[in-house]
Amino acid sequence: MTEEIVVIPGDGIGKEVIPEAKRVVESVIDVTFIEADAGDAVKEETGTALPQETYDLAASADATLFGAAGETAADVILPLRDAVGSFVNIRPAKAYPGVDALRPETDLVFLRENTEGVYSGHEDRLSDDLSTLTRVVTTSASEALAAFACDYVSGEEHDGFTIAHKANVMRETDGRFRDAVVSVAKENDVPVDEVLMDAFATRVCLDPTQFDVIVCPNLAGDVLSDLAAGLVGGLGLLPSANVGTDRALFEPVHGTAPDIAGNGIANPTATILSAAMMLEYLGYETESNAVNDAVEAVLSDGPRTGDLGGNATTTEMTDAIINHL
Amino acid sequence: MTEEIVVIPGDGIGKEVIPEAKRVVESVIDVTFIEADAGDAVKEETGTALPQETYDLAASADATLFGAAGETAADVILPLRDAVGSFVNIRPAKAYPGVDALRPETDLVFLRENTEGVYSGHEDRLSDDLSTLTRVVTTSASEALAAFACDYVSGEEHDGFTIAHKANVMRETDGRFRDAVVSVAKENDVPVDEVLMDAFATRVCLDPTQFDVIVCPNLAGDVLSDLAAGLVGGLGLLPSANVGTDRALFEPVHGTAPDIAGNGIANPTATILSAAMMLEYLGYETESNAVNDAVEAVLSDGPRTGDLGGNATTTEMTDAIINHL
Ligand SMILES: CC(C)[C@H](C(=O)O)[C@@H](O)C(=O)O
Ligand SMILES: CC(C)[C@H](C(=O)O)[C@@H](O)C(=O)O
Repeated sequence: MTEEIVVIPGDGIGKEVIPEAKRVVESVIDVTFIEADAGDAVKEETGTALPQETYDLAASADATLFGAAGETAADVILPLRDAVGSFVNIRPAKAYPGVDALRPETDLVFLRENTEGVYSGHEDRLSDDLSTLTRVVTTSASEALAAFACDYVSGEEHDGFTIAHKANVMRETDGRFRDAVVSVAKENDVPVDEVLMDAFATRVCLDPTQFDVIVCPNLAGDVLSDLAAGLVGGLGLLPSANVGTDRALFEPVHGTAPDIAGNGIANPTATILSAAMMLEYLGYETESNAVNDAVEAVLSDGPRTGDLGGNATTTEMTDAIINHL
Repeated sequence: MTEEIVVIPGDGIGKEVIPEAKRVVESVIDVTFIEADAGDAVKEETGTALPQETYDLAASADATLFGAAGETAADVILPLRDAVGSFVNIRPAKAYPGVDALRPETDLVFLRENTEGVYSGHEDRLSDDLSTLTRVVTTSASEALAAFACDYVSGEEHDGFTIAHKANVMRETDGRFRDAVVSVAKENDVPVDEVLMDAFATRVCLDPTQFDVIVCPNLAGDVLSDLAAGLVGGLGLLPSANVGTDRALFEPVHGTAPDIAGNGIANPTATILSAAMMLEYLGYETESNAVNDAVEAVLSDGPRTGDLGGNATTTEMTDAIINHL
């Protein structure tokens, strides 16, 4: 059977790393790619950053691989997460041997709530002086995330998870989040503890090995996972998966990198690792492991792009990864 | 003239570090301390974590020095910030020679909006499933912060400031914040740039010298300054000032440290540095500089507490600081 995967390169280095990730996927499974457009360039041309066709493709495919969008990032990625019905954003942040990291012992996975919080989209301009945003937290979304988290940590690799929140200030909303997640964890006999998100920010710098899987509201997950990116050596390495009930969307955590876009020197790692997450999601576990292992091998002593201190092009680094498969 | 300063030791190590900060202040100015209660212990006894007398004292004194509160921290510190009419929370995060820091080159100051954002206190339970929080942003509070920031960066030490926000998602509210701050900066010919708060979290780890003074909404300031604490070696070193129009409240960024409370081994540095900020605020600039210099000297090669790798008691470390004055 040929797998059909939607790919949306987007803008900037998205256009350079997505073709490389496609080559990697093609070398391990039988696949047909369906190309779709989104981002600044499309908006320039058509007036809309996310064409309806692209939304519809993502909303009906099993899996979509997205690159990056520029100024229009929020207009593209938030509706796309919605298109796949994603309730969780999985963000591993792991340091690799051979890559300069501020905390080489970092090995974390963030499970970020992906539908609500301050991302609910309800804002009002109430007067010339005052605007409000309605931050939404539901028990149902929190429970869906928690159920996923319980499943995620089952097995020997993980010993439960930590909830990062700010329920000492957002008592009703983050209190609801915390209580819902704790109660699902208890029902499933999954060990759970909690930490305030500000304290997490300090403690993860001092010793990232204190944490393993972190479950958090939407904005907390956004900021804390980017912090973890800083500990492992930058955004060039971090993949992510937006998982829904029936489909999912995979994307590097980095953006369009306008400073280096067009030069063929972007680091393809984050997108290739996102493709590995996609392979696992689609059931190609062996192939996914092979890609992860190949990336790890190349990061440890293969050719690498400039951001990692090497001088390989995007294509050369990908070739090395493919050679290891 | 004798300066009158309100002191609120609070709980845990608050009770150990405040007396030491008092000794330091007494050794440089003529001062009378007015003691007040707040925190878990008071709540246990009286049913309220922040007695009206304490609130009233803070609301009428020129300066208040606060230690820490335990479980009741939010019930104490948020009303106290309100009592002094504080619109800005100043949080320097600086690495010291002689102290183990993840990024020894860190030297940042956060100017955190101190009255609104998700701290507005408006939360509602709308159904069994759904709760909301109303995040409030006003132009007036943003402008007050911006005016303070412009004043703060005037002089040779700083070259403008950076706004950290999440206006790509919170377009109306953080958009209002960003626009108000930018326009005050422009009026005052103060150089200003901006960064998304998630990108800041990555970038400050990779190279903290990219930033200097960071102006941000309330929760962003909370989390990003705690992140900076992780880069300089922990919360034991970070002072803060909550400044209002007519009065101010000074507090270490750390909490009650229940694991070491009662043993006389807490690091007094953050509270002594907070006292130095207080001295400066009250107009004792020479004395403030002297305290800062003494702290720096002791951190560089004097006796230190266990969290800094030494074995001095809280009192011994303070003695050393006083000896340097
Ligand atoms: C572009 C932006 C809307 C997005 C977010 O905040 O989720 C990005 O920062 C991310 O984390 O994928
Ligand atoms: C205790 C809590 C309410 C407080 C805050 O969030 O402001 C604390 O984290 C701080 O930063 O002083």
